Amino acid sequence: MNTPDWITRTFPSVAKLRAGGDAAPGGTPAKVKPLRSTRERLNATLRQPEEALSPRVLRRTLEALRAIVDPQVSEVEGGRRAQEVAAWYAKATAPERRDLWLLMSEQFVADAARVKAAQAKFAAAVGTPDEAVAEVNYRRATVSPRRRLLQRFSVAPEGIRFLVDLRAEMSPFLKADKRLLALDVEMEYMFSTWFDVGFLELRRISWDSPASLIEKLIKYEAVHDIRSWADMKNRLDSDRRCYGFFHPRLPDEPLIFVEVALVDRIAQSITPLLDESADAADPRKATTAIFYSISNTQQGLRGVSFGDSLIKRVVETLKLEFAQLKTFATLSPIPGYRGWLGRNGTAMLARLSPKELAELGRAVGFEPPQPEHVLALLDKPQALAESSPVRRFMLRAAAHYLGREMLDGKPLDPVARFHLGNGARVEQLNWAGDLSPKGLKQSHGLMVNYLYDLKRLDKHRALLAQGRIAVSGQIESLL
Amino acid sequence: MNTPDWITRTFPSVAKLRAGGDAAPGGTPAKVKPLRSTRERLNATLRQPEEALSPRVLRRTLEALRAIVDPQVSEVEGGRRAQEVAAWYAKATAPERRDLWLLMSEQFVADAARVKAAQAKFAAAVGTPDEAVAEVNYRRATVSPRRRLLQRFSVAPEGIRFLVDLRAEMSPFLKADKRLLALDVEMEYMFSTWFDVGFLELRRISWDSPASLIEKLIKYEAVHDIRSWADMKNRLDSDRRCYGFFHPRLPDEPLIFVEVALVDRIAQSITPLLDESADAADPRKATTAIFYSISNTQQGLRGVSFGDSLIKRVVETLKLEFAQLKTFATLSPIPGYRGWLGRNGTAMLARLSPKELAELGRAVGFEPPQPEHVLALLDKPQALAESSPVRRFMLRAAAHYLGREMLDGKPLDPVARFHLGNGARVEQLNWAGDLSPKGLKQSHGLMVNYLYDLKRLDKHRALLAQGRIAVSGQIESLL
Amino acid sequence: MNTPDWITRTFPSVAKLRAGGDAAPGGTPAKVKPLRSTRERLNATLRQPEEALSPRVLRRTLEALRAIVDPQVSEVEGGRRAQEVAAWYAKATAPERRDLWLLMSEQFVADAARVKAAQAKFAAAVGTPDEAVAEVNYRRATVSPRRRLLQRFSVAPEGIRFLVDLRAEMSPFLKADKRLLALDVEMEYMFSTWFDVGFLELRRISWDSPASLIEKLIKYEAVHDIRSWADMKNRLDSDRRCYGFFHPRLPDEPLIFVEVALVDRIAQSITPLLDESADAADPRKATTAIFYSISNTQQGLRGVSFGDSLIKRVVETLKLEFAQLKTFATLSPIPGYRGWLGRNGTAMLARLSPKELAELGRAVGFEPPQPEHVLALLDKPQALAESSPVRRFMLRAAAHYLGREMLDGKPLDPVARFHLGNGARVEQLNWAGDLSPKGLKQSHGLMVNYLYDLKRLDKHRALLAQGRIAVSGQIESLL
Amino acid sequence: MNTPDWITRTFPSVAKLRAGGDAAPGGTPAKVKPLRSTRERLNATLRQPEEALSPRVLRRTLEALRAIVDPQVSEVEGGRRAQEVAAWYAKATAPERRDLWLLMSEQFVADAARVKAAQAKFAAAVGTPDEAVAEVNYRRATVSPRRRLLQRFSVAPEGIRFLVDLRAEMSPFLKADKRLLALDVEMEYMFSTWFDVGFLELRRISWDSPASLIEKLIKYEAVHDIRSWADMKNRLDSDRRCYGFFHPRLPDEPLIFVEVALVDRIAQSITPLLDESADAADPRKATTAIFYSISNTQQGLRGVSFGDSLIKRVVETLKLEFAQLKTFATLSPIPGYRGWLGRNGTAMLARLSPKELAELGRAVGFEPPQPEHVLALLDKPQALAESSPVRRFMLRAAAHYLGREMLDGKPLDPVARFHLGNGARVEQLNWAGDLSPKGLKQSHGLMVNYLYDLKRLDKHRALLAQGRIAVSGQIESLL
Repeated sequence: MNTPDWITRTFPSVAKLRAGGDAAPGGTPAKVKPLRSTRERLNATLRQPEEALSPRVLRRTLEALRAIVDPQVSEVEGGRRAQEVAAWYAKATAPERRDLWLLMSEQFVADAARVKAAQAKFAAAVGTPDEAVAEVNYRRATVSPRRRLLQRFSVAPEGIRFLVDLRAEMSPFLKADKRLLALDVEMEYMFSTWFDVGFLELRRISWDSPASLIEKLIKYEAVHDIRSWADMKNRLDSDRRCYGFFHPRLPDEPLIFVEVALVDRIAQSITPLLDESADAADPRKATTAIFYSISNTQQGLRGVSFGDSLIKRVVETLKLEFAQLKTFATLSPIPGYRGWLGRNGTAMLARLSPKELAELGRAVGFEPPQPEHVLALLDKPQALAESSPVRRFMLRAAAHYLGREMLDGKPLDPVARFHLGNGARVEQLNWAGDLSPKGLKQSHGLMVNYLYDLKRLDKHRALLAQGRIAVSGQIESLL
Repeated sequence: MNTPDWITRTFPSVAKLRAGGDAAPGGTPAKVKPLRSTRERLNATLRQPEEALSPRVLRRTLEALRAIVDPQVSEVEGGRRAQEVAAWYAKATAPERRDLWLLMSEQFVADAARVKAAQAKFAAAVGTPDEAVAEVNYRRATVSPRRRLLQRFSVAPEGIRFLVDLRAEMSPFLKADKRLLALDVEMEYMFSTWFDVGFLELRRISWDSPASLIEKLIKYEAVHDIRSWADMKNRLDSDRRCYGFFHPRLPDEPLIFVEVALVDRIAQSITPLLDESADAADPRKATTAIFYSISNTQQGLRGVSFGDSLIKRVVETLKLEFAQLKTFATLSPIPGYRGWLGRNGTAMLARLSPKELAELGRAVGFEPPQPEHVLALLDKPQALAESSPVRRFMLRAAAHYLGREMLDGKPLDPVARFHLGNGARVEQLNWAGDLSPKGLKQSHGLMVNYLYDLKRLDKHRALLAQGRIAVSGQIESLL
Repeated sequence: MNTPDWITRTFPSVAKLRAGGDAAPGGTPAKVKPLRSTRERLNATLRQPEEALSPRVLRRTLEALRAIVDPQVSEVEGGRRAQEVAAWYAKATAPERRDLWLLMSEQFVADAARVKAAQAKFAAAVGTPDEAVAEVNYRRATVSPRRRLLQRFSVAPEGIRFLVDLRAEMSPFLKADKRLLALDVEMEYMFSTWFDVGFLELRRISWDSPASLIEKLIKYEAVHDIRSWADMKNRLDSDRRCYGFFHPRLPDEPLIFVEVALVDRIAQSITPLLDESADAADPRKATTAIFYSISNTQQGLRGVSFGDSLIKRVVETLKLEFAQLKTFATLSPIPGYRGWLGRNGTAMLARLSPKELAELGRAVGFEPPQPEHVLALLDKPQALAESSPVRRFMLRAAAHYLGREMLDGKPLDPVARFHLGNGARVEQLNWAGDLSPKGLKQSHGLMVNYLYDLKRLDKHRALLAQGRIAVSGQIESLL
Repeated sequence: MNTPDWITRTFPSVAKLRAGGDAAPGGTPAKVKPLRSTRERLNATLRQPEEALSPRVLRRTLEALRAIVDPQVSEVEGGRRAQEVAAWYAKATAPERRDLWLLMSEQFVADAARVKAAQAKFAAAVGTPDEAVAEVNYRRATVSPRRRLLQRFSVAPEGIRFLVDLRAEMSPFLKADKRLLALDVEMEYMFSTWFDVGFLELRRISWDSPASLIEKLIKYEAVHDIRSWADMKNRLDSDRRCYGFFHPRLPDEPLIFVEVALVDRIAQSITPLLDESADAADPRKATTAIFYSISNTQQGLRGVSFGDSLIKRVVETLKLEFAQLKTFATLSPIPGYRGWLGRNGTAMLARLSPKELAELGRAVGFEPPQPEHVLALLDKPQALAESSPVRRFMLRAAAHYLGREMLDGKPLDPVARFHLGNGARVEQLNWAGDLSPKGLKQSHGLMVNYLYDLKRLDKHRALLAQGRIAVSGQIESLL
């Protein structure tokens, strides 16, 4: 696509800047924090050193953005103008892009006067038959032009892709520059409308799916790295299932996907599931579906939740295909456990009875034992006998971590937060379930199953809303 | 689907009422206007005669609706509950359905206190770096629970279909019962998001399309009735094109469709276009695309505009297929002309010069001529010679009607309003262009072409925004 | 497609002839019978009056055909040359086309010398290990170049379509001109290979199928004329099924199709099945599938049998969809009955006992009754009481016609021949089952059910091979 | 599928034999050669040691095969019986399978008496109008029941797959056991009908194709091994194309596929084409399509030729997509060169002039040089300077090998045979074009381009039919 006219008029320095080589999108988030608001800069004459666009160019860019939402032009024409800006963006430097974000965030707020008038009408209508209409009109007045701006960008075939990528690119800068939050939040809002669950198509991904799609799974897999195509093929074998959500506007992109193993009991270790040389079992005989990996793929869709629906739709789909499936559970990592235990080891030790403490001390060779003594034995968790007091201590601590620890009313562990939030319960702890370096690093090799008991999901959610985490009898006995 | 539990508990009288035969959805809009608000009824003990649901049942129904948006339950569960209400609705009587509309309209307004608090925070943040975020939060607070209610209904595969049909069914009642407006407006807002142009798929409809789809065109055609399958087949011949917009959530339903003839000059009469016995011309040689029929199909999507985008997308598609196409125009009815002329005939006569008036008088046999004298000659417009003063008078009046008459800043004639709003211009008037009973009844057989000059669409729109209608030289000379 | 070079060189008179208006493909079969063989004509100098192509042009045409099978050229090039001949054919007059058929039939026979040599080798090899190979080689030598000619025509995308249409066009001429039989038989052989049942795709045809396809059903329906699209829609309703066989080389053409009604007992009359205003029954509750119409569509595929496979595949498909279906039967016309009875009425009367004859005589008012007395009462069969001796006589005669009459070891009635040949049995006669003019004309309104008892099909076929027709107890009692 | 009844009755020893471990299909071809014909064995009482099936079981197996072609049973029933035999085959041991091949080959020959009678009728009809028909009937009589047997096997959905695999499995045994040839030849004949080019679908294979399909390419690639998925992805990059032929009865199986590079001149070395790290060029600018790999995939389809059509269809397809492509050529290995030179080195040296011989002698350090002196320098062909006499000698010898050496009227080199048979010409020799071990082993690294000049293909084929190979001026100058 050629650079459109208005861009060469407006940004004479584009080529030069790019040639300068600082165009790498991303840059270093930390050091970028212009001090002036776009309002100040638009009224200024001179560019300050840390600013990418000069006041003059900034004004022209704002004009280009405003032209997109000009109420005089049709949606189609607005969409065309948005595509021009997107074309400019594709070639812009990282600092130039940030200036665009700032304009979009700071300059497209709602019209305060109009809001106020609508509010007054609403207040006057309360209790009258006009109340409901007045309320709707009032709410409409509060809709910011920023929303229309995003809508116009979305018109082009690649428009949604552009916005999702833009948000992903902007993400690392949010912490350092709160001015971008308005745009980020607005995008999240629009995305949750556009990516409404009703629009998502559940599609099975198999070894017959396009190689280009399977390559994306390999790239996006977030839980257990896919090491090779052979590894991937094993995960798509006849006793496995993989499902993803797809959206009509991003047709080749799985937004989220889940990998499922069809087995005959709740899986205790990830190792056999990832063993490429194992024979496929007969899925017709499986009683249990194990969700052993769920990965979100789009950083730009952060805050838009798919996982809950995905799991429920997958459960329905599996039940249709395999009527004899009775148990639906995950085999999940506990990513926050090791870190948490590092900070809370002493407190956990303090919960032991004197007898237990003594036993543990003897096992580690120090009395009274300190956290570091325990942890020193955990390089090879598989070496610890089932009756080892160390093992028992670790399981109890993990049960506490998963079954008790909450933050802002939600489970502390991020994976627990997701599954418990869906209504699952903590079912079973699995010693040495994941002996990969990542597994050891996250949780000393410990894994957990969350059970999706379809009849109790809402009961568990209600419990959670009261601050209590649903756990199985096995976990309860460890607490 | 069986009637779910909560419904049989709540609506014991459903079966009885339906058996009574008054269930025909629709009923007579005019006579239905309950006097009490749902608020009053929910607090009451007894049902008044004109109310369908008793206070007790109304309360239970409200509970069922509130259960849908219960923040404790997942979106999936909320969707399931919405499906139960939809199942009830399918079996409900017309008065029961109206009660549901009232509950949805009156009972799901935003929380005033929360809105007020958010507004205060926003006011305090103006001018600070938090302004944009505060603004977003404020706007969020104004979102009514009604929106979430609609969203949950939309989750089910048939959810959007349900809502669109519900709104269509509610339409005739809006005038008589303003309380329903809030729901109507909210639906329009949600629909314009869901049916965003980016989600629409332009699909060609041909004789190879499913018979069930073509049957819908026959049913929905709003401009020139399709008399038979042979008539339809002629409109899908090799020198014709038909395109519709489709939405992933209503996959078998054309939301709007347009019929195009590929010809070698601007068509002046609808007759040859609808002549089933005419041979198909070679579309490769056509220079002109005539849009001779555009029909919206979904009453429930009233207010959501597709036509503008449709025409522009079709023009692009046609240009790709037929590079030699140069002219894009409509052949349109003038539905409001006859009625308008009946009211404005005297005024139009008054605009004639004495000489013109005398000529006209001689032609009609009365001097000075009155409107009724002119109209008396218009039963068979094709019988009037091209030089007839009557014909000339009628064309001038039509030019005035289309080129000057506006209401609230928009063209008076509804078809003109649509095409001129898209940026077309009034191009050519065609005497005796439509001699069907409908054509004679609407406009004494007169038809008009609107020209889509792609390079001037925005110019014409801008002109229109200033209150001026773009017309061709031919029309100008008649004014 | 333009006329290729060699054609304009070879057939200068093509345009002239066509302009002369005798080009109507088909012509009058009877009067066309050139007396000279192509061999004679190729050696002659002058054209005789009844010959379309002059000897010179005939020679060039033969060259063009031989160029197609030139072993020097590749299959692709041969196919291209065949397409040129096909292009010529499309523009040729009917007599010119017939000359082409004659060339293809008479000039592309196997090489006698080569056949003889191969046969000698085969004879010598009998009893040795080389026997089998020698036999294969011998058989190969007998393959005529005509087969390769057909194969080359088939290469082009439209090649099979061309050949099937050519054979259909040639059909009416076969009786009068036996020289065409060789080509006809060769085509039948090639078609039965190409249209091998394994290549056929069973496809359900529904109201969601393309209108262009459904239009073909309306055209091709051979049993009960489809009167309108509404009639067609009724036959595709939810309690009906329609299936056709499709071939990859004729993708839009149903080769044969069957219409099925899902009902709760064996249907006795076609009237309710064709009643457009009847409500659809619930197909989930149906116990019986009635095949009430089977139509072959391609005259050019005469001799290639699809019906047997179609019915068996449809039965399998229906059983998968509707597990509760138990009975599969037809509701069939008896096209030859009335004609047969006209010729055999006296003989049938002679089979009656004196008492029966007397009863019948009283019923028709003549003693002894003659066939014409009986037939005189059959204009309105529905008017005859169930106990009428006329009715009983007619049923017995029909039972005899269907259950006994054979020709060359096969059932005499053509529809009976088809179904009984598939292994069905004669199940039930239905008085006044088809009161349409066609039904009255074929069989005085009588219809019959053939029952497909899947477990007995082969038994019935074996019986038939011994000259015996399988019938039900009901029919047996009439014999 | 369970083992059907008749099999357990007939082959009681199946399980035992398989348990014995000699069931590996394939076995060692050489040592298997039963001495008795199936005719003898069917009449015998006892099994000889080298025979798998006892006479009794052999008779039952023959019955099972004959039941398939029983003219009493329908094609559908015959197909079902064939499926039972196929099910048995799937579980049979290798020796049992070979017995089945022998039965199919030896026992299903044509009926000699019927052939003789038909031939007599034909002889009598020569010169009469009945000649053509009699000829067809005669030819029909020669059709063996074996063909019908194969046809019935083909009816089942997996039937063609079964037959193709069976033939592939049988291939290694043909040399040692001529009795199998009849079955092999018959299969080749049937396959060339079923796999007629008109039935083949040309499909592009890209990175968006199913992974399972791409995995097959990796497995089947016969020219330049595909080392990894990354290698494969490079070969499907934007400046590459890959096409395969597919058949409706083997829908997931590429029968043959070709890999094409779009470049700007005739490629001289395979190395850059297989370089995964090279950037993709812009295919819109390419002038030249290089076919650098063609692989047949089905051993069972040996003798059925696809390559010619594939290349021509691909050329057409490429020209449609890239109008600026002018040159179509291969980059091919010379698999027979090294072996041939080993046998003909002395003769090639003898063709040198004394001066040339002297130069070569100096270059290799031996005068007069012997072949082994030359070959000793060819381990690293890239080390030889362009002007080296060794290099010149090798190129001249290669030009001779490709441009002159023929066997049975066809080019000696197998790859040359294929491309020259298609009408290509020898265009250019490329020193050090393939330095892989395989390339060095086959041809000391030499590669060749064959040019497909579409206008001259038939001319070149005609030349070849006269025993002359078409070569470019460059090659000519080396001869």
